[in-house]
Order: sequence, then structure tokens, then C-alpha cells
Amino acid sequence: MPQYTPPVRDTRFVLEHVVGLDRHANVDGFAAATPDTVDAVLEEGGRFVAEVLFPLNQVGDQQGCTRHEDGSVTTPPGFKEAYRQFVESGWGTLSAPEAFGGQAMPHVVSTAFQEYMISANMAFAMYPGLAHGAIAALLVKGSDAQKAKYLPKMVSGEWGGTMNLTEPQCGTDLGLIRTRAEPQADGSYRITGTKIFISAGEHDLTDNIIHLVLAKTPGAPDSSKGISLFVVPKVMVNDDGSLGARNAVSCGSIEHKMGIHGNSTCVMNYDGATGWLVGEEMKGLAAMFIMMNAARLGVGLQGLAVAETAYQNAVHYARDRRQGRALTGPAEPGEKADTLFVHPDVRRMLMEAKAWTEGLRALCLWGALQVDLEHRAGTEDERQMAADLIGLLTPVIKGVGTDKGYEIATTAQQVYGGHGYIQEWGMEQYVRDARIAQIYEGTNGVQAMDLVGRKLAQNGGRAVQALFRIVGEEVAAAKGDPATADFADRLGKALGEMQAATMWFMANGMQNPNHVGAGAVSYMHLTGLVATGLMWLRMASAAARLKAAGEGDAAFLDAKLVTARFFAERILPDAGALRRKIEGGADSVMALPEEMFLAA
Amino acid sequence: MPQYTPPVRDTRFVLEHVVGLDRHANVDGFAAATPDTVDAVLEEGGRFVAEVLFPLNQVGDQQGCTRHEDGSVTTPPGFKEAYRQFVESGWGTLSAPEAFGGQAMPHVVSTAFQEYMISANMAFAMYPGLAHGAIAALLVKGSDAQKAKYLPKMVSGEWGGTMNLTEPQCGTDLGLIRTRAEPQADGSYRITGTKIFISAGEHDLTDNIIHLVLAKTPGAPDSSKGISLFVVPKVMVNDDGSLGARNAVSCGSIEHKMGIHGNSTCVMNYDGATGWLVGEEMKGLAAMFIMMNAARLGVGLQGLAVAETAYQNAVHYARDRRQGRALTGPAEPGEKADTLFVHPDVRRMLMEAKAWTEGLRALCLWGALQVDLEHRAGTEDERQMAADLIGLLTPVIKGVGTDKGYEIATTAQQVYGGHGYIQEWGMEQYVRDARIAQIYEGTNGVQAMDLVGRKLAQNGGRAVQALFRIVGEEVAAAKGDPATADFADRLGKALGEMQAATMWFMANGMQNPNHVGAGAVSYMHLTGLVATGLMWLRMASAAARLKAAGEGDAAFLDAKLVTARFFAERILPDAGALRRKIEGGADSVMALPEEMFLAA
Repeated sequence: MPQYTPPVRDTRFVLEHVVGLDRHANVDGFAAATPDTVDAVLEEGGRFVAEVLFPLNQVGDQQGCTRHEDGSVTTPPGFKEAYRQFVESGWGTLSAPEAFGGQAMPHVVSTAFQEYMISANMAFAMYPGLAHGAIAALLVKGSDAQKAKYLPKMVSGEWGGTMNLTEPQCGTDLGLIRTRAEPQADGSYRITGTKIFISAGEHDLTDNIIHLVLAKTPGAPDSSKGISLFVVPKVMVNDDGSLGARNAVSCGSIEHKMGIHGNSTCVMNYDGATGWLVGEEMKGLAAMFIMMNAARLGVGLQGLAVAETAYQNAVHYARDRRQGRALTGPAEPGEKADTLFVHPDVRRMLMEAKAWTEGLRALCLWGALQVDLEHRAGTEDERQMAADLIGLLTPVIKGVGTDKGYEIATTAQQVYGGHGYIQEWGMEQYVRDARIAQIYEGTNGVQAMDLVGRKLAQNGGRAVQALFRIVGEEVAAAKGDPATADFADRLGKALGEMQAATMWFMANGMQNPNHVGAGAVSYMHLTGLVATGLMWLRMASAAARLKAAGEGDAAFLDAKLVTARFFAERILPDAGALRRKIEGGADSVMALPEEMFLAA
Repeated sequence: MPQYTPPVRDTRFVLEHVVGLDRHANVDGFAAATPDTVDAVLEEGGRFVAEVLFPLNQVGDQQGCTRHEDGSVTTPPGFKEAYRQFVESGWGTLSAPEAFGGQAMPHVVSTAFQEYMISANMAFAMYPGLAHGAIAALLVKGSDAQKAKYLPKMVSGEWGGTMNLTEPQCGTDLGLIRTRAEPQADGSYRITGTKIFISAGEHDLTDNIIHLVLAKTPGAPDSSKGISLFVVPKVMVNDDGSLGARNAVSCGSIEHKMGIHGNSTCVMNYDGATGWLVGEEMKGLAAMFIMMNAARLGVGLQGLAVAETAYQNAVHYARDRRQGRALTGPAEPGEKADTLFVHPDVRRMLMEAKAWTEGLRALCLWGALQVDLEHRAGTEDERQMAADLIGLLTPVIKGVGTDKGYEIATTAQQVYGGHGYIQEWGMEQYVRDARIAQIYEGTNGVQAMDLVGRKLAQNGGRAVQALFRIVGEEVAAAKGDPATADFADRLGKALGEMQAATMWFMANGMQNPNHVGAGAVSYMHLTGLVATGLMWLRMASAAARLKAAGEGDAAFLDAKLVTARFFAERILPDAGALRRKIEGGADSVMALPEEMFLAA
């Protein structure tokens, strides 16, 4: 049977030594995040997801969701009761504002909890996850009346929420949206159209679902500049907060998918449904990006979180399964065979998983800190720096986090040999679940284009220069300490590759933007190596410092240093190859006539 | 709906210009493979699989196999009738000896057909595929009586065949086998034990299934040296060839798997079943490796074949789906959006798939030629050279072919965006099907250990030196032609990285074999880059030569040259990173105490 234990010790280490939670105690809301409170969130929250949500992960995959003839959708056995407990325990309200019933904790703390919840049950976690995206948009763009009407019950989890963007003819290219919003005399709109791939679009967990829907008003231009955002409740909400009539929105079907079977992916039909404009007309794209940026960080976290569970199980299996002998001679001569752990290639797989999951955990939490600082830091400079960094890193966390998440889940499955391919062992589910994260909320190719096409050049390259400066300074500082000098040297080289690739884009992109597009995904991964490398440098430096001071758990700190070395020797070398691929440019990518792609 | 068209033009190009079929006309059996005969196999065989087998691929996945209470197994709807046509048409008999009803064609020709059959329906192709492994073992190790009794009907396809190696407690480590073979007075053995993961172990396609089973005779040593191979028919075969009583072997259950649902993966219970020794007692491992080496090449081919179908569909989708605009301005201003084909990153994905599938096709067919030459070449030197090359390249074709196959299938799915995740579009099936090929017939980690631990050092490194010499000579020759000079230069650099990595193993492996084990998978991929690079050099050289001579289809030859350039600029750069990872050695891989892998 699969297992999952929240990696509380590692999260705590990251919060303390990479994020530096205590150094930000003066930031609005951070004072509440005392070590005791954070410990309680990690310990109690971790226990809740491990005991209540994780046992439903496999049954959720096997039973999936069921749509009934009346358009209602039943979630897998156990989900409804677990969701009730989730709402009662308040785990969904950690970082929401107190004004709407939240606990006003830093985003970085709720992100730490989110990781555990996704690790325990990704399909389940998506129900509150989608609601959080909708909450984020309403908080920023909703009117006071809309906030008052919807947010308290969305924050508590009594009501769900969704994001309705995609249509059959458009995913990435939202300018092609056909859903129409006709203004009514009472200030409402009648929404008509079909949305597809709507996660948590219909289900039995909540009494109401608040849909945020992109649509076009009459006469709006035929581009993404013509899009408006609407709030469309599944069940109308009376002024006294009670539920009224059913709105004209329904689930037409649910998709049969490769994974995340426990989450209902719906075709949503809007048949003149009543909705209200959120924010300004034709400013829907900006509102959408509020949901989207939050969602993209959440999806990056999914990559890490699913990989973590897959990795943990691979470690257990490698310790239990006996097969073959160590290359250096039998490790346990009294047994018929040694465990998988003696085999260097098995360890290589586990170390890759460990180096990436711990590195990505630090990167996701450091990114979440930037979200906090962007809104709450004391000075404009700090807020701008944080906004720059998270703007730059959001596509990297999403794209690299999920590419590596899928890769690690696959690697963990590989450790099981043939048993990894069999459903009952649970490993193949992690691969199938992790796969979607590379696709939704903008494919990873779209993330890469966001990075090189928008984020890189914004404000004269201010954000990437800031990253270069931070990495450069920390590399320089770490070179002085023998414990971190080699790591710093190797990270410095990777930084050099990234700077060279950036220069190459600058020198060639103006002449032909395809040169940038053709190298986009390689550049995203190069940035991911440098950013995750920075996280490992911080972890290694902290470990070396604590060890020298005789503080902390020596075995844990040694493990950090060994894993950092593995990251440097076994993962960072990809930086050079990525740079050379980028410098290959667009010529061989674009030269082939379309009709020559099929050799038949 | 998914599509598949056999890439006949490309196969023909490879057979002519990489394999050089006509240059080997003096080899036993090759004279029969005239251009007309080969064309007929490719055209007619390709049509058969595309028209009969491919339409059953999705239904096979969705319906899967069913085991009934009596232990019988029903294959998916349509499989039985399609198999009947397969047997009648004789497509399964291409390379079998004429003495047993085969057509005695070169292995390289039947391999070309195999690719198409797997592309059309991997799960279906496994039924005859497993029988071929059993045939190969009986041909070499079976007695004349066994050959006469079983081979004609196995060759024709009237009877199936299986390989029974794995048990619950052992996959890779066959020394742990517990299945027992008790000698009987009549010269037969009573076989008792449980075998798992037996592909095609029970089904309704044939009247009989001939199981080849590894078991231990009384007193045999507790290691792989104590293993013997037995032939155990599902139904006893009378001396006149008619079928007799049911043998005591039955399917206890079938596995629920991630993919290849159309193939029955069985737990096989041997309850004192009657079997006969194949070859000598306790020489089962050698016999097993005959099956295994054939199977490994077949599995490498599965990687390529599934990737090819996934790639073809991604090309169609990219041409049909309109989303966004070209970075260089609208390509089709009259349309609401351009096709996916304008986007450099979509092209990058398709070019990676094209460069790998065409390169792997050449490598698989060139490898198949070595199998022919190993047995049929005119001189001992030629036979030895071929045996060396295919011994070295078998784990590379299996490991790299399937790692890249899975990667390409995933990439092709990515081109579809959200639709790639939905079952009805068919793309996610290719990913799930391709996944098993990295695992079975020895995981890719086991392949890598076979390469670095056995094949590399055998006969003083003769095989790898031969590969170095071939690549070196062809690189040197190609540097003189401006059309191939840059490619040759880059391949020469990759060869240099592989030579350096080989030297590093030699210098460090004696001191600590874990240094070799820790770099095994990287070395396998480095070898794959060089070997596939050699194939691309040959294709590029042939294309340049034909173009200069004004022969052939100029558009097709230009496509080869562009794709070769892409391979050189965008894929070969990985060689340097792989070398550096290898040179990282085992220290950071092996240093962590087991209990420190879990950070919780």
C-alpha cells in the first residue's frame, strides 16, 4: 500500500533558512506566523491530509467521478465526508483575509500546507484549489457587494469556485472566445456559451459553486482585449445570503482523462445564465491573470507535491525489495539478495528525485514569500523587487516544477520495475496525475514564451538582472567557505551559461523573434537550474553554518550537503547543453516545409 | 480520430542507404530480399496493419482483456478475427526458416514490418512478438523432436508462445527463482510454481500456447547458474501432432495495468505441469538470453514504433488546430488564428520527435542487419564484428529506444494541449503503452549495467573500439564534404565525449565499481547519441550525395539534411552534459545513509 508522510522537518528547514520567516516578522501578517503557529499548521495540517485525504487517493483514481442524467456529479466515495471535515477544520482558510473569515496567515505558510494536501490527494486538493483562484480574482477585482455576497462562504469552503476560460476552439488563444454576455436592464448579464475542461465545474461537495467566466459583451473586439470577466453562481444567492433558484448553467458531460479521476473535469453549458461583471468591461484578461498567476504557482506546486509522494514510496520499496548484489560484494551475505538500495543506479534515481523535490520545495516556498512581499513588504523597493522576482519565476516554477514533477514520478515508478506498471501498487497513478500539470493553466511551452517573450524584457530586463545579481552575490560569498566553494563554483558556471544565453537572445531576438521562441523551453529550464541551484546554495550554506556551530541535527545537515553536491555534479551540468541548444537558434527548427514532417 | 500511415518511404531510404541491403546480396537469404519483394512487404504489410490492426488499438485499450472464472481469457473485441487474418496472410512468418514454414527473409526486413505492426497496435503485436522469442529459443536450444513438434505451428501462428521468467520475489535477479522441476521416469518434468507478468500468458487467439519456463531442478545451486529452461504446452501435443489433454498450467489472474490493456498480462500457476527440458540442465540462463536478446531489440523497436504513431498524430493536430499568431506576424491573416505549426516551440517538439524516430528507425534496422550478419555473413571476421556490434548495441537500442520513445510520446501528447489528456483523442494511450517498454525485458537501468558492466569490457573492449573506429572513420570522411562537414564536426565532438567517458570508467572503475554503476544510464544515453548520430551522418551523407547527383526526391532529401542539422544542433549537445555527469562519479550518489533519504 502506498504511504505518505508530510516532510515537516524539511519544510521547517526551508522556512527558517531559505525563506527566513523570522527575518520578515515586520511584514504585515507575518507576526502571526510564529514558529509555534507554523509548527502547528505543518504538524496538524500534515496529519489531517495524511490521515483523511491520502487514504482516498487510490479509490478516487479507481472510482472517479460520475455524472448523472440530471447533470449532477458525484465525487468518489469518501470525498464528500472528507471535504466536510476539511471545511470544519478550517485548513482552507489559512491565508484568506480576516474580513472574510480567513486566518490572514502569510501565503508562504498556506503554500507549505498546500503542498502536503496535494501530495496526499491531488484530485481532492483541486476542489479548494480552484476556489482559491476564484477568491483571488474577486478579492482584487470584485465590487464590495460581490465580495460580501460570495467571499465568506467561498473562504470557509461552504461554496466552491471555478475558472471558466477554455472553449472547444480556444485554449491558449483567448481572443477566440465565443461565449457571449448580453447586458440586461437590471445590470446583470445573460451568459451563453460552452466552456470545456472546467475542473471542479460540478460536484456534490458544496451547496453552491461560484463560476468566474470569461465572455464577450456585444461589440467587443475580436481579440483578447475584448474579454470581460463575470461571476455566475450555480445557485442564485438572495440578498439575505440564502440560496435561491438554480441558474441556467449545467454540466453537459465529464471528461474521461488520463488521470486526476477524482476531480470532475466538466463541459459547462451556459444557457442564458445570469451573471455579473467583475471589474471593468473588456478588462477581463487582467482579472484572469490574477487567477492565472495564483493558479500557475499552485500547479508548479502540484509537480513537486506528486513527485514527493512518488519519491517517498520509491524509497520504501528500494529498502524492502531484495534483488541482486552490491557491485562491491554482498552487503548482507546472510540474505539471499541485497536490497535495491545497494545499486548505484537505483540510488542515482532516488538522489535525482531528492535533489529536485527538496530544491523545488525551497523554490516554491521562496516564490510564495515573494507573493507575500509583493503585497505586504514595508517599502516600495521591496515590493517591486518581490513583484519582479515572482513575475519572472512564476512561469519557471510552473514549467520546470511540473516537467520535473512528471520526470520524478516516472523515475520513482521505474524503481519499482514491473510492479510500478500495475495499478494496485499506486505508482502509475502518480505519473498519470502529474502529467496534467504540464498541460493546464497554460502548457509549459506557453510558460516558456511568457518567460522569454514578456517577463525577460519587461522594464529593461530588471527582473532577470535582479536574479543575476542575487545569484552572483551569493555565489561570490559562498566561494570563501570550503564547505560551499565547489558548489558555488559550479552554480557560478551555470549562471554564466544563463547570462550567455540571455545575451544571445538579446543579440538575435530583434532580428528574428523565432530565435527566442525556438529556445524558450531550454531557457526556462536553464532558469530553473539556476534558481533551484540558488536554493541549494542557501540550503548548503545554512547546513554548513549550523554544522560549524554545532547546532541542528548533524545527520540531517550532512544529508543536505551531500544532496547539494549531487545537484551540483549530476544536475547542473545540463546548463551547458541547454545554452548550446538555445544558441542553435531557429533555423533548423523552422526550415522544414509543413508537408515534409510526415515521411510516409 | 487517431491516424497511422506506415512510413514506407523512410524505411526504404534507410534500407537502401543506411543498411545497404543491396551490398549484402551475397549473404545467405538476402538474395531473396529483392527490392520488389521488400517493397511488397512494406506496402502490403503496412496496409494490413493500418487497415486491420490500427482500428483495434483504441478499443483494445478501452475494453482490455477479461479473465473468466474457468481461467480462460478473452482478448478485446476484434482481436480474434484480426489475428486469424494475420495468420492467414503469413505476416508472422517473414524471417522464420523455410524448414518450419517460414519465408527465410532477412531479419532486417521482418524488423521493418514489425515496426509497422507495433505502431498500429502494440498490445496486439505482443502476441506474435512473444511467440517469436519462444521460437528463437527453440530454434537454437530445442531438440530436433521438440522443433518438429512445436515450431511449424508456432511459426505459422496457429499456436502462441510465451517466456516465463519473473516470479513474485524475483525479476532481475533470476537466481532467486523458486519454481521447481521434478524429473519423471519418462524423461519429462513436473513443473510447480508461480510466474507473474507473463505477457500473452493466456488468451483466446490460438488453440495452444507453448510456454518456455525457467525452473530449478532438484539440488540445483541457489543462483542463476542453477536455472534450467523447460517447454510446457498449455495443451499436450500427441505424437501425431493432434492436441491432447489440458496441461496443469493455468492463468490465476490478469493484471490491471497502466497500459497495453489489449495484451493479457497473466499470473501463471504451474501445478505439477508436464514439461520437457530445453537444452542442457542448468544451462537455462544462456537459453533465456537468446529469447531475451531478441526480445530486447523488439522492445527497443516498440519505443520507436509507438513514438512514430504519436508523432504522426501530433503533426496532423498541429496542422489542423488554429491558436495564436506567428511571432513574425500573422501567417494567414484571413483566418482568425494561425495553425500551431507557426509556433517555434511546437516545431521544436515535432522536430525532436522526427529526429529521434527517424534516427532510431535507422539504428533499429542497422541493428537488425547485424543480427543477420552475425549468423549469415560469409566470413568469420564479419560475423564476429556483427556479433560485437549488436552485443554492444542491444542494451542501447532497448534502453535509449524506449526512454526516447516515452519522451516522444509525451511530447506528442503535449502538442495537443488539454485534448492530449482526454482519452478519446488517443494520445494519452501512447504514453501509457510506451511506458512499459522502459521497464520490461530488463529495466533500462539493467540495460545500462549490461552495457557498462559486461559489453564494454568484453574481449578487451573490442566492440566499443569497433564502434569508435566506424564513427571516427565516417566522421573523417564526411568532413571533406561541405554538406556534411558541420554535422561531422559535431558528431566528432560527441564521439570525443564518449571516448573520454569510457577512459574515465577505465581509470576509476577498478578502484570502485560503483563509479561505473553510477554513470551507467548516462553512458547508455551517450552511446545512444553517438550511435544515432552515426545513423544521421549516413542519412545526411546519402541525401547530399543523391542531391548532388540529381537523383531522388529533392524535398525528401532536403528534409533529411534539415533534420540532421536539427539533431546536431539541438540533440547532440547533451553529450557533453552526460560526460560531465559520468565524471561526477559515485561519491555523491552513494554517500547518503539509507535512513536519510526521507526528510520527514
